[in-house]
Amino acid sequence: MPYRVKCIVSYDGSRFHGYQRQPNYRSVQQDIEECLKVIHKSPVVIHASGRTDAGVHALGQVFHFDSTLDIQPDNWKRAINSLLPSDIYIKSVEIVDESFHSRFSVKTKEYRYYMSIAEYNPIRSEYVYFHHYPTLDINKIVEAVKLFEGTHDFTSFCYGNEKEDRIRTIYQASLNYDNNELEFIFKGNGFLRYQIRVMVGTLIEIGYGKKSIESLGSIFDAKDRRKAGTTAAPQGLYLYEVTY
Amino acid sequence: MPYRVKCIVSYDGSRFHGYQRQPNYRSVQQDIEECLKVIHKSPVVIHASGRTDAGVHALGQVFHFDSTLDIQPDNWKRAINSLLPSDIYIKSVEIVDESFHSRFSVKTKEYRYYMSIAEYNPIRSEYVYFHHYPTLDINKIVEAVKLFEGTHDFTSFCYGNEKEDRIRTIYQASLNYDNNELEFIFKGNGFLRYQIRVMVGTLIEIGYGKKSIESLGSIFDAKDRRKAGTTAAPQGLYLYEVTY
Repeated sequence: MPYRVKCIVSYDGSRFHGYQRQPNYRSVQQDIEECLKVIHKSPVVIHASGRTDAGVHALGQVFHFDSTLDIQPDNWKRAINSLLPSDIYIKSVEIVDESFHSRFSVKTKEYRYYMSIAEYNPIRSEYVYFHHYPTLDINKIVEAVKLFEGTHDFTSFCYGNEKEDRIRTIYQASLNYDNNELEFIFKGNGFLRYQIRVMVGTLIEIGYGKKSIESLGSIFDAKDRRKAGTTAAPQGLYLYEVTY
Repeated sequence: MPYRVKCIVSYDGSRFHGYQRQPNYRSVQQDIEECLKVIHKSPVVIHASGRTDAGVHALGQVFHFDSTLDIQPDNWKRAINSLLPSDIYIKSVEIVDESFHSRFSVKTKEYRYYMSIAEYNPIRSEYVYFHHYPTLDINKIVEAVKLFEGTHDFTSFCYGNEKEDRIRTIYQASLNYDNNELEFIFKGNGFLRYQIRVMVGTLIEIGYGKKSIESLGSIFDAKDRRKAGTTAAPQGLYLYEVTY
């Protein structure tokens, strides 16, 4: 009898052309599916909670697949990790009910975005967004980020598909600041493509005074991507946790 | 009149085949020399405090070169960084006396080695050495690392050139341990090739009981590389600071 396997996976996005399988580019999905193909001796398709773009990292991405093999969860973890390259790692494996779906059963998703205003450090260049804004007003960003909480139409903050519903609910939007490092936390019922990066880019512009906190309302109302700020660099973004 | 320029440089060793220029492989030296060639419109040779091997990082490598260009130190920093790739960064530039030499004038060198016994994290795989030793006795390593301090013949702990003097003095050898992370600190008047990594590899073997603390004396006395432990992985090693 086939059963469903849920995996939590972390990966270093800097060496992939994104999560989703595509021809001629290295993707996380393809690397995992190739491992599962070796184990099953036949093709296996995995389903993730959603895509991540090129350069974006994951600490708690979730995917599932179906199998009939007689393997226990701990052995699944060892088996897959022993075949995966060093930049992907399965953190946990669980057998779940077949009604579970990595994408459709999502309750919340949490992303974090890391930015540094310290001097550039080449060792961290793929893992944090470095930018030195001498006039950055952190307090303004702390105030503005709260305005993203709640249920909004995020059309101005994404590159979404025309037909797609752009209404999402953000339960937590906050900023921690310590020692020249900014940690943005966004937790919601779902996020649109580039949404976190456009929100962060807009918040940075508020921080250095290019946009005002008050303008956020009219940016939401405009439902026009051009009204928001630039898209922040991918290397600062981490898919942190998905809950079901 | 030519004058001497001293630079402190950091780099991400994971994407280079080591510091030293060599045919057909990417090296830190070549990338820097190519930038200086663009600025000078003629070839420039740089001299570093020493090499670092493939995969080894630097936070405070030092090199010098000679120039006749009319450029101030701060402008030198900007000019070189604007041409360098994202994985190399000049932290500071200083005009020094022509008697200064990055290699021959070294007073002390400090290396740090980072190891994690936490669960594997693919995002850090090129920046720390991950290894889970369930039975690792940190206290033994803290005790053993001190025995490397002082003036010793380090023949057993390097892959040195036959003719080379292998006597070196280590001023500080210590271990900080916090939250499953080990930070080894080694500060001395100079280190032989692979010396830090062989010392760390030997200390790890002491930590999990393959070697005893007492055996260190006889390993030194043997002057035989085969008596020491394995060479620890390069990605944990950082050239931290060079003083003059």
